[in-house]
Amino acid sequence: MSDDFSPTDAQTACFEAGIKFGSLYHQFAGTPVSPQSADSLARAMEEAIENQPSCEAVRVEIDTDLLQDAIADSTAEYTELTGRFLDVEIDVVYDGCEVTASMHLEDGYPLMRLDSVE
Amino acid sequence: MSDDFSPTDAQTACFEAGIKFGSLYHQFAGTPVSPQSADSLARAMEEAIENQPSCEAVRVEIDTDLLQDAIADSTAEYTELTGRFLDVEIDVVYDGCEVTASMHLEDGYPLMRLDSVE
Amino acid sequence: MSDDFSPTDAQTACFEAGIKFGSLYHQFAGTPVSPQSADSLARAMEEAIENQPSCEAVRVEIDTDLLQDAIADSTAEYTELTGRFLDVEIDVVYDGCEVTASMHLEDGYPLMRLDSVE
Amino acid sequence: MSDDFSPTDAQTACFEAGIKFGSLYHQFAGTPVSPQSADSLARAMEEAIENQPSCEAVRVEIDTDLLQDAIADSTAEYTELTGRFLDVEIDVVYDGCEVTASMHLEDGYPLMRLDSVE
Repeated sequence: MSDDFSPTDAQTACFEAGIKFGSLYHQFAGTPVSPQSADSLARAMEEAIENQPSCEAVRVEIDTDLLQDAIADSTAEYTELTGRFLDVEIDVVYDGCEVTASMHLEDGYPLMRLDSVE
Repeated sequence: MSDDFSPTDAQTACFEAGIKFGSLYHQFAGTPVSPQSADSLARAMEEAIENQPSCEAVRVEIDTDLLQDAIADSTAEYTELTGRFLDVEIDVVYDGCEVTASMHLEDGYPLMRLDSVE
Repeated sequence: MSDDFSPTDAQTACFEAGIKFGSLYHQFAGTPVSPQSADSLARAMEEAIENQPSCEAVRVEIDTDLLQDAIADSTAEYTELTGRFLDVEIDVVYDGCEVTASMHLEDGYPLMRLDSVE
Repeated sequence: MSDDFSPTDAQTACFEAGIKFGSLYHQFAGTPVSPQSADSLARAMEEAIENQPSCEAVRVEIDTDLLQDAIADSTAEYTELTGRFLDVEIDVVYDGCEVTASMHLEDGYPLMRLDSVE
């Protein structure tokens, strides 16, 4: 029966949380960024993704120390946004089910994961 | 207890499926596209997202009739990729749990949804 | 002689101005946007592109009335950033040569053009 | 007189060439890529940007050896497209004026430059 395979609300909430992470990352990866412009970019990322359905809150931190290091190693005065500069947490609520997910650097790879599903 | 809120494998599979959809959409939305270039773009979208972890298969169709209509209405000979031209299906397998999700146009909005979770 | 074909400073300044426009448009097109989030997005676009070499100033306006109209026509509470909502002006200075370029909607197509080259 | 500051056809051709480079880079930077998917991505980038006005030809090469090295250094089986993997050449013709521009890695920075203006 196809009903056996229908998603639960919790599963849909997790799917929605994933959409927000993929959107945030691939919309903004590659943006020119410097320690001076990091704050306006982080705010815009938060407010942009909070527009999406079921998205309660988005918290974005861009590590300006790491940005400074990357710029010191290069000939340019800015770099491009990638996962290694980012720390992100997103809360999604779908039909009463609350999901919190986050993205942190782990072994050099920006790992996205579910933190809690209630 | 925090364990009560730990995600199941099925929930993680759904989260992973969501990441793929958000990534695909926001990486490629805005790409200049015409009926002639639609096929190479669709193939690149499939192969790019299939690189991501737990992603078994991606099927992308770009509606060239709708592209043609959009171009006929404008002064340019191409348009930009948006959800209304896209039909996408993605299979994710995480720890034995298989999720199929899709994106179709619904009431003018490119709706992403979980089709089955096994 | 190949020298005949070497670019002048003014031509290089125009090339640089073009890079900024292409970057701004294709980095941010597709971003979820609403009248409430338009301001943070416009500021982030300005500061991001101002990081690029030879870029003196970027002015971005997002037309919130047009956003409101687009949202009223749809089932969602936000839309995606495209050229029809944007008004952009960029100043580039390369080796003493100043170029101003802009993007405005013209016949439904977001036309980018050089306004002055000094 | 404002006419003194009006752009020449050659300057406009250079501006158009810049737009193509900025577009190509910021549309596709961040795309998941592996040696296996590099070819479909390069073809899609070429055909997408060739849609833009005045764009005669686009040649994109993605360095699969460098991709392989980047993947060997990480825990993932793919990486993200950035300028260090790219070699691009674009021909623009505007009102009889032909411009060739290219992007190559130079001191670790993906430098875009005008090669010839005829």
